[in-house]
Amino acid sequence: MTPPFRRLRELMAQLEDLERVGGLLSWDQETKLPRAGAEARAEQRATIERLAHELVGGDELARVLDELGDDSFESGSLEAALVRVARRDHEKARRVPARLRADMTRASALGIAAWWEAHARDDYRLLLPHLERQLELKRRYVECFDRFDDPYDVLLDDYEEDMKTEKVAEVFAVLKRELVPLVAEVAAAEPVDDSFLHRKWDREAQRSFSLGVLERLGFEPTSWRLDDTQHPFTAAPSSRDIRLTTRFDSENIHGIFSCLHEFGHGLYERQVGEELARTPLAHGASSALHESQSRIWENLFGRSRSFWSYFYPRLQEKFPAALGRVDEEKFYRGINKIEPSLIRIDADEVTYNLHIILRFELERELVAGDLPAHELPDAFDAKMDEYLRLRPPNVSRGVIQDMHWAEGMLGHFPTYSLGNVISVQLWERARAEIPDFDDRIEHGEFAPLRDWLRERLHRFGRMLPPREVRLLAAGADVDPGPYLAYLRRKAADVAGLSP
Amino acid sequence: MTPPFRRLRELMAQLEDLERVGGLLSWDQETKLPRAGAEARAEQRATIERLAHELVGGDELARVLDELGDDSFESGSLEAALVRVARRDHEKARRVPARLRADMTRASALGIAAWWEAHARDDYRLLLPHLERQLELKRRYVECFDRFDDPYDVLLDDYEEDMKTEKVAEVFAVLKRELVPLVAEVAAAEPVDDSFLHRKWDREAQRSFSLGVLERLGFEPTSWRLDDTQHPFTAAPSSRDIRLTTRFDSENIHGIFSCLHEFGHGLYERQVGEELARTPLAHGASSALHESQSRIWENLFGRSRSFWSYFYPRLQEKFPAALGRVDEEKFYRGINKIEPSLIRIDADEVTYNLHIILRFELERELVAGDLPAHELPDAFDAKMDEYLRLRPPNVSRGVIQDMHWAEGMLGHFPTYSLGNVISVQLWERARAEIPDFDDRIEHGEFAPLRDWLRERLHRFGRMLPPREVRLLAAGADVDPGPYLAYLRRKAADVAGLSP
Repeated sequence: MTPPFRRLRELMAQLEDLERVGGLLSWDQETKLPRAGAEARAEQRATIERLAHELVGGDELARVLDELGDDSFESGSLEAALVRVARRDHEKARRVPARLRADMTRASALGIAAWWEAHARDDYRLLLPHLERQLELKRRYVECFDRFDDPYDVLLDDYEEDMKTEKVAEVFAVLKRELVPLVAEVAAAEPVDDSFLHRKWDREAQRSFSLGVLERLGFEPTSWRLDDTQHPFTAAPSSRDIRLTTRFDSENIHGIFSCLHEFGHGLYERQVGEELARTPLAHGASSALHESQSRIWENLFGRSRSFWSYFYPRLQEKFPAALGRVDEEKFYRGINKIEPSLIRIDADEVTYNLHIILRFELERELVAGDLPAHELPDAFDAKMDEYLRLRPPNVSRGVIQDMHWAEGMLGHFPTYSLGNVISVQLWERARAEIPDFDDRIEHGEFAPLRDWLRERLHRFGRMLPPREVRLLAAGADVDPGPYLAYLRRKAADVAGLSP
Repeated sequence: MTPPFRRLRELMAQLEDLERVGGLLSWDQETKLPRAGAEARAEQRATIERLAHELVGGDELARVLDELGDDSFESGSLEAALVRVARRDHEKARRVPARLRADMTRASALGIAAWWEAHARDDYRLLLPHLERQLELKRRYVECFDRFDDPYDVLLDDYEEDMKTEKVAEVFAVLKRELVPLVAEVAAAEPVDDSFLHRKWDREAQRSFSLGVLERLGFEPTSWRLDDTQHPFTAAPSSRDIRLTTRFDSENIHGIFSCLHEFGHGLYERQVGEELARTPLAHGASSALHESQSRIWENLFGRSRSFWSYFYPRLQEKFPAALGRVDEEKFYRGINKIEPSLIRIDADEVTYNLHIILRFELERELVAGDLPAHELPDAFDAKMDEYLRLRPPNVSRGVIQDMHWAEGMLGHFPTYSLGNVISVQLWERARAEIPDFDDRIEHGEFAPLRDWLRERLHRFGRMLPPREVRLLAAGADVDPGPYLAYLRRKAADVAGLSP
């Protein structure tokens, strides 16, 4: 190693330590922190963030990158990747003044607090000034950059490097064109009976079943945890310390699927190549690629006939009263029922994307200044009516159901549906390449899928830009074709439409 | 605030955030971290420590302290205290080269790992090179300082500012002179029957009883937690986020007393003045003062007749089979039985100090170079024989029972017994100043003691040097008189000696 490269590794290792520590502070806050400790924790997180920012945008890193200059490391090598990512992260950090970054951090904390209040009181006015502030800050943030076709590109780039607004709009136009009529078609068919799902479900039995499933999939207690939280998420303080969180609700069995979803995120972080440890390469490559992993395990795997063929008898054992008389076919159709509903995170696989598309469209208008924040509730309701034929009864179950905007997370929503699209591209490829794919899942053999994902995707981490990772892993860039075909087949199967 | 003082506050706030974050990382490691995550965690802790060290020993702080110069803040003001503590911590940090500090951190991690191995295999040779390394590092550390009478003073000063080896030796000589014969006297008397304690104790029942006690004492779930661990300790990520840890063992009820012990540490951190938040003043003033608090709640309070007069019926309810036929008097004598035993942390109030005194004497010889580390086991056994008339059957239950030396914690042991001494000085004063003291405890009124400790001690944090805190809170500096009188009364009461 040359001295400047050695110093680059050291700086990146420190930065990575700070990022992981920040993640742990946040995990702790959502799962363990006594309530009164929140204020001090906010200061601690801000200090860690500031130190990380000083490091990544700092003069020493600038000097080191300068010294490395055109040092041409072998393409595809860890060295080349580290320099590329360090340079990218450094340049982005340099463009944003410390003052603006501090304002954004503060606005995010205040926005989250206001969201809880507004959501509990069902009052949009409590949130409005915070949304206006977020939009103002986002515009200032966008102004720090140049060379973009659409200001929304700048926001998107923070989650999905090099993804363009135009490309998202194109993919979403295809989805919308197919899915709006498909939803209408399902609505006109004989309704699926899922009444058996609407009863009380013992939370501890759900936990014990879910843990049993996770352990079969690869959750080992030496490297994984599962904790309770309000809004499920996954933290990875290191690739050998994967922390899933979930919420088991006695009104439904969503918690079981949420565990599978978070397992997908966790497995990606767990299977990143060990040689990438303590570098910023040791993460999933992008938000959409991460989401593709959670969707594979939650939906393509977790709502499939093959999965339940293996696990349904075990679920029946846990819930003999509720499921003793429900056969596997009825259960399968129930958990896959397609029906427009108000809440994004509870939506079925088909309607889910329409929730995302309408948020993307609204975000673009907000950022462009074409939609003032005070008109957002009406605009939201109008799109809910247009795409899903639903009218939210209030703002808590409508426009302010998600915390994202209050928190300043604009540009993130589209990666959820892009993740769905990519998940099927990967799934189809895995099926083609793994012999007896469905058969093995039906018999409880899950290692082949896990190993395939590691080999094709996980181990690379951020070694390559997301687009190249997509090409490498899925064999093609984002293509909604396979996903739409999958949804049509599923709709036909579940709702009894002609395929 | 003048600009340099404002900058001092900012730097100290950052430093304090890093210290608290480091504490949380350690708490997490001992209670939540999946085993395989330990390696990455060690790197993260090292990075946080290094950043803290760079800050406290750094040029910017040097400049700010220089600018503040002789700015004479009002004596007793927060400003004056902050400058004093910042200057002290800065000067200590400046004297120790980064390289030596890194060596110490590494030796500590390796020493702990070696300790586990040596302890499990009962093999002193596995630990010996690590102890030798620790002693070599301690000598290099001592050499960084000047103006001391005894090299051990330098080590002691890290835990007990300004305490001198000579003073400790003087106090311990008094204790030893009285306690060795007292132990012999008890051994000659009729033995106390504590056979009822040696049975199986349900761990969940112990937890539920302990939590009930803690909640009566002031443990509120909005600011406190209790978690399981191997070696109990208390973490305070902030003064509103107090985390006790404990270990309930089915072989004994030590876990109940361990909860009371940790509660004492936690309450000190909880009741530090709110105006000290995000400064290095927001901690207990020294190790001995901290230990005095844990000993008050564990022993003076938790092994008193008054305490059990209130709680014993509740304990009997939790353990009807074990305690239904054991009356309060018999229970009181059982939990206070005085008897030489091998393991320091399980020792009774009287013999405990002899375990500490022998360790202090050995540490001094080790540091002075008068005792080579390979002769330590024999020296340890000889003192065990001399003070307690016991011969350890092996090294795991003898010389390497504690992790302190392997970890590099030399100079810490004496603060345990100093804490005992101070605890009785404080206790006697509280009894004199709180009307109907015993009577109120017997009736479950614990707020007066808690409030007295806050007013007299806790709220000051590190505002004053420990010696001044001792004078202020206890009305006198370390004085073994009241403690010895207390132990003699207790021995007479429990073992039926003539007082």
